[in-house]
Amino acid sequence: MQIQRVVRDLVTTKRTFWLQAKALRVVEDYKGNLEVAVDPIGCKPGDFVITIGYSAARIATGNPKITTDLTIGGIIDHWDEQRWRS
Amino acid sequence: MQIQRVVRDLVTTKRTFWLQAKALRVVEDYKGNLEVAVDPIGCKPGDFVITIGYSAARIATGNPKITTDLTIGGIIDHWDEQRWRS
Amino acid sequence: MQIQRVVRDLVTTKRTFWLQAKALRVVEDYKGNLEVAVDPIGCKPGDFVITIGYSAARIATGNPKITTDLTIGGIIDHWDEQRWRS
Amino acid sequence: MQIQRVVRDLVTTKRTFWLQAKALRVVEDYKGNLEVAVDPIGCKPGDFVITIGYSAARIATGNPKITTDLTIGGIIDHWDEQRWRS
Amino acid sequence: MQIQRVVRDLVTTKRTFWLQAKALRVVEDYKGNLEVAVDPIGCKPGDFVITIGYSAARIATGNPKITTDLTIGGIIDHWDEQRWRS
Repeated sequence: MQIQRVVRDLVTTKRTFWLQAKALRVVEDYKGNLEVAVDPIGCKPGDFVITIGYSAARIATGNPKITTDLTIGGIIDHWDEQRWRS
Repeated sequence: MQIQRVVRDLVTTKRTFWLQAKALRVVEDYKGNLEVAVDPIGCKPGDFVITIGYSAARIATGNPKITTDLTIGGIIDHWDEQRWRS
Repeated sequence: MQIQRVVRDLVTTKRTFWLQAKALRVVEDYKGNLEVAVDPIGCKPGDFVITIGYSAARIATGNPKITTDLTIGGIIDHWDEQRWRS
Repeated sequence: MQIQRVVRDLVTTKRTFWLQAKALRVVEDYKGNLEVAVDPIGCKPGDFVITIGYSAARIATGNPKITTDLTIGGIIDHWDEQRWRS
Repeated sequence: MQIQRVVRDLVTTKRTFWLQAKALRVVEDYKGNLEVAVDPIGCKPGDFVITIGYSAARIATGNPKITTDLTIGGIIDHWDEQRWRS
């Protein structure tokens, strides 16, 4: 699983059926690469999270029909890696 | 899920059975790397989209027999990342 | 799906059961990275192809027991990206 | 499978259901890239381990409903690659 | 599938159940990146092999319960890429 930081929400009016009504967040790694994850937990921008990829991402939403390849799996209590501060 | 931009359609006369009759788009990330995605939504060149990978890509087409590993999952309403402008 | 170019055939006398009797091609991306793909279509060296990865690669062979993680999914009619010419 | 080194435990109070009660470890590769893995074996910081990714990661926990994409599969008895020492 | 070279065996006394009794090899790509693969064929150090990843890796062992994400699929008869010699 990856360690990523929540950047903001993502708004997509036109969306495939099985992603509808799911909260989507833009997340970034410590290099600033952006990805999009389903958020079943309720995160705020700035939260450090672990994200789950591949087939486990679908299961982690609570419904394997949800067509995501990245899902937030937990909020890290405290993360103080130097690399994230630059 | 990745954030990519639709570049153009892809024409492949000779194609495996389960990809036939599917719209294929060339998409690029902000670094200009090109990939090919199935488009079940109907995107135009220049649209910023989220793309779904791995086993979820098949399900996102509406038919898990469709042999794709990348499917467009939604059109982003507004994307103004600086990196994409260069 | 990736865009790759067929380089040549791959000969492997000793091979696992489910890959036997399958045509294998060495393919390269525009950076020259080499991979090996099952070819259910019949490609020639120099053909530009789209390749399908992950679980979809198995299904794209026509038999999901075939243990491949990369399968050629179609021949691109015309590809004239500058990057490939260098 | 990857070769990684256990760095420390990861504490996440807020976590999806199927990851609850699982030991999570921060692991790093020889370049210092960090990931998070489920640890069904009981590793200590500093242990060199092999980690299993993708769908096999779920099965390797002993319960495929566990929504992980990376699971520690074994402790390497002795690892003395030069690259890890720098 | 990737093209890799067998480096040596990997000894892991403490190992998850479904990897027990499986031969593990350290393999490298032409850049020298190391990974670990299950070897159902019987390779020697120095052999050039094709390796199968993701869900196909489990099936290629002959038993999909084997929790590997990389399995050797065949020995290449002859490989003389310049890049491997440096």
